[in-house]
Amino acid sequence: MAQINPVVGDIAGNAKRILSWTAKAKRAGAQLVLFPELTITGYPPEDLLLKPGFIDDNLKALKSLARKITGITAIIGFVDRDADIFNAAAIVHNGKIAGIYHKMYLPNYGVFDEQRYFQAGTTPLNFVLNGVTIGVGICEDIWYPEGPARIQSLAGAELIVNLNASPYHMGKAALREEMLITRARDNEVMIAYNNTVGGQDELVFDGRGLVIDEKGSILARGRAFEEDLILTDIDIDHIHMARQHDPRRRELKRSTPADAVRLIELPAIKRKLRPPAIPKTKAIPLEEAEEVLQALILGTRDYVRKNGFTHVAVGLSGGIDSALVAAIASFALGSDKITCVAMPSRYTSKASVVDAEKLAKNLGIKLLTVSIEPAFNQYLKMMKGPFKGLKPNKAEENMQARIRGNILMALSNKFGWLVLTTGNKSEMSVGYATLYGDMAGGFAVIKDVPKTLVYAVSEHINKRAGKTLIPARILTKAPTAELRPNQTDQDTLPPYEILDKVLKAYVEDDKSSDEIAAMGFRKAIVKKIARMVDLSEYKRRQAPPGIKITPKGLGKDRRMPITNRYSDKSK
Amino acid sequence: MAQINPVVGDIAGNAKRILSWTAKAKRAGAQLVLFPELTITGYPPEDLLLKPGFIDDNLKALKSLARKITGITAIIGFVDRDADIFNAAAIVHNGKIAGIYHKMYLPNYGVFDEQRYFQAGTTPLNFVLNGVTIGVGICEDIWYPEGPARIQSLAGAELIVNLNASPYHMGKAALREEMLITRARDNEVMIAYNNTVGGQDELVFDGRGLVIDEKGSILARGRAFEEDLILTDIDIDHIHMARQHDPRRRELKRSTPADAVRLIELPAIKRKLRPPAIPKTKAIPLEEAEEVLQALILGTRDYVRKNGFTHVAVGLSGGIDSALVAAIASFALGSDKITCVAMPSRYTSKASVVDAEKLAKNLGIKLLTVSIEPAFNQYLKMMKGPFKGLKPNKAEENMQARIRGNILMALSNKFGWLVLTTGNKSEMSVGYATLYGDMAGGFAVIKDVPKTLVYAVSEHINKRAGKTLIPARILTKAPTAELRPNQTDQDTLPPYEILDKVLKAYVEDDKSSDEIAAMGFRKAIVKKIARMVDLSEYKRRQAPPGIKITPKGLGKDRRMPITNRYSDKSK
Repeated sequence: MAQINPVVGDIAGNAKRILSWTAKAKRAGAQLVLFPELTITGYPPEDLLLKPGFIDDNLKALKSLARKITGITAIIGFVDRDADIFNAAAIVHNGKIAGIYHKMYLPNYGVFDEQRYFQAGTTPLNFVLNGVTIGVGICEDIWYPEGPARIQSLAGAELIVNLNASPYHMGKAALREEMLITRARDNEVMIAYNNTVGGQDELVFDGRGLVIDEKGSILARGRAFEEDLILTDIDIDHIHMARQHDPRRRELKRSTPADAVRLIELPAIKRKLRPPAIPKTKAIPLEEAEEVLQALILGTRDYVRKNGFTHVAVGLSGGIDSALVAAIASFALGSDKITCVAMPSRYTSKASVVDAEKLAKNLGIKLLTVSIEPAFNQYLKMMKGPFKGLKPNKAEENMQARIRGNILMALSNKFGWLVLTTGNKSEMSVGYATLYGDMAGGFAVIKDVPKTLVYAVSEHINKRAGKTLIPARILTKAPTAELRPNQTDQDTLPPYEILDKVLKAYVEDDKSSDEIAAMGFRKAIVKKIARMVDLSEYKRRQAPPGIKITPKGLGKDRRMPITNRYSDKSK
Repeated sequence: MAQINPVVGDIAGNAKRILSWTAKAKRAGAQLVLFPELTITGYPPEDLLLKPGFIDDNLKALKSLARKITGITAIIGFVDRDADIFNAAAIVHNGKIAGIYHKMYLPNYGVFDEQRYFQAGTTPLNFVLNGVTIGVGICEDIWYPEGPARIQSLAGAELIVNLNASPYHMGKAALREEMLITRARDNEVMIAYNNTVGGQDELVFDGRGLVIDEKGSILARGRAFEEDLILTDIDIDHIHMARQHDPRRRELKRSTPADAVRLIELPAIKRKLRPPAIPKTKAIPLEEAEEVLQALILGTRDYVRKNGFTHVAVGLSGGIDSALVAAIASFALGSDKITCVAMPSRYTSKASVVDAEKLAKNLGIKLLTVSIEPAFNQYLKMMKGPFKGLKPNKAEENMQARIRGNILMALSNKFGWLVLTTGNKSEMSVGYATLYGDMAGGFAVIKDVPKTLVYAVSEHINKRAGKTLIPARILTKAPTAELRPNQTDQDTLPPYEILDKVLKAYVEDDKSSDEIAAMGFRKAIVKKIARMVDLSEYKRRQAPPGIKITPKGLGKDRRMPITNRYSDKSK
């Protein structure tokens, strides 16, 4: 299994990747090489799929690839067209396209919109290679017990190969593994599950391909968050034994129409096969903070790299959020590829200045300091007339954040740097952020990381480094936006331990205020939080994309109307 | 037909609206009153549909409504739940829910995501009221020749009532009308097509309900962009005559299973019916510029009103875009509900200052002037160090736009005003706009209006007013962003007559560069434009929503990846 990192839209580049990984697999002695879902286009291509020229280009690339791939069988994801378009897999065998499968189950929930684009396939496909019957499936197909794998195995498949682009979220790896083990056992079939790897806008694909035998034992496991060639030698003899001793199977097979599965026999390829040296792949379960960190690093690196940037800028406040983002960026790109910018004001504490400096030094990142005071003073004068007789309020507070946004964007415009924003999921959920201020930037690294997890990941970074990369005081002091004297987050927000739990229930689990209150939170607090979430939808709509790490992020996962009068008050 | 304007999420308010319009219909002598699609929730409720509590609340509202509606039959749109959820219509008859229909065709393209939420219905429904057989359908159902209306009319329906939330775009009214006329004739059936009206985020619903007889003649037509009660007296006798003389129909009916359509007989309601005074509704075809203007006015008014704002701010540059937005806002809200803000700099021409003042005066809008120079000077000083040795470029240009954004947002934060942005579709398509600068604001009124149409609508405003509300020079001078000396848009962009045609082909029609060049444009220009569109996706992702007026807007209609290496260069 070639667990590779394609780039969306980069048809020529992805074709090259397919060729070089096919060569690698051949060199390693493989007879069959499996690529991820929509290998040629990258996943998800979104509305590029509505461009007829894009489909043409991807079809041309497949044909050209097929001519070049010889001496091996490769299963390649692409977009097929036949009256409609299909999320498809081509069986490329020794210089020819020997068969094409169309994905039958099209996800259209969460971040997925496949029914916007594709027609569903209707016919499962098995092919025979060197005496082994192999069923082809694509991603969602394997998630249904009644999906094609069932009938494919009844029709004789000993191995199901499944092409995936399965986005990461915390806990998903375990979900997948349990499901695949059950599917393998239920159907007495081996499963080779190959996942794409890499970042694409708000999604991160974590790889971690799996080869599982018919008893549910894991034979091989791909690396997490990295490209990998997963080699396995499979033995199908005991499958026949097991199946012959299973009376339920005979019963089921009798009621399955003989022509329900299309069957393709591939001619033998004559070449000397060196017995592959199979690396014993061990399970390397990642602890949560490390897994999240790796997802954030890969998501950041790929957004920067795939969009053609070489350098990023991060506004450093001396607080935990910007410290974490700077650390992630330094791991993703190297410290010399980041410029941190401290932008103090009259409200910036000495501690913040010191902590920001210390952090930059610890990470080896260049720190630029630009005081916002000269501009802030002018704004206050400029608005003296319009604001006459009115007390300072969030207008003056947000002004400061927007001056900082302007400085960062000026650096971006001058030097071609990408600005990383530093807002976390707790803030983004309740709108505790300044639009065009601290929300200004191209990529929101920790947008889906709740504040309590921001602390956990930051602490993990120090633990992992074996030294306090992130200064201790940053981890312990009370969080503050420093936009007015003696401000702390908790002037406006409930404690983060409470806030994050209520937000999970309200935003991720769609619970009502009553249900959340029944979990043990004060009704007034729950209502306040829910209202803050509802009223800040307009801010999130204008936020940059950020990496999804929870089951429900604040991007394509959650599509709320801005104009929306629904709330507990309507009861 | 009650062509009403519900508010998304406002279940209690929408229920009230249903009651008051039902009473109105009753007073007018109607026996049947038809509401729009998803009347109780508003359309589209988007991910509110994933909240179980929201579905509960809507079901409770329906039950309560049913008890209160007596002496008349009402067809009300709501979300039904039965293992899954359905886009549904309830037949409320004299205090009871007499039947429920589930929408069978669920659109999942363009701005629609109905397969994300709903299960499709499987059974067409007819009901008999006072001897007339009436088939119920919801929106998309009627767009397919093989849809439920076909079988409903074969099973005896003389009238099809269709509940809609059909969003406006230019030319859609004619499309709808032609389709409905054909559908009526093909099925020898009368059609009552009721559409919602009002703005909801980027969508505007234009009303214009239609009652069509079986010969395709229009019996009644609802107002455009306004609420309306559309009264029609229908006569079904000639339908029977026509059907009896149609041999094809007899043939078709023979092959239709008798139980394919569910039939409900409603008991008669005993009440004195005054013969309704039927207003002869004439076709009032709107000329394009007027139609677009009305859509923009309603979209703006409803976004402001439904989100609880009472006042808006518009930055006035002296150019055509901000002039048009100010004019639209004044028509939508009244001149006293807008504050215009002129924010001149060293590059602002005397003409711009004069034109902005003149426009504000003509529209009766208060004009605030805040020079950006004091802040701009400070920024230049603050960035002197970091920018040392580098020539001024877009960094200094965008700085100015972002100072303006900061001023407008400070006013917004201080006074609770909504900032309207002024970018047009041509600019937004190629990214000729400053993120967090002129793109800063809550609602982008003319985001889907190409520059050439901006001129046409502006000229129309003067024509319609019978005086030059928008000063003549604004309509004739060369467009410029005035961010550097002697700048004009055409330094960077091709002439708008060419740009807009190429953009329509590339953005709306998804044509390739080769195809567009073949239409008669220089290949180099086409490639340049396509590249500008592709590279500015990240800006559009952070833009405020704006009113869709073309078949393909830049919002939910177009879902492009930001990370995207596809372009002609990959060929």
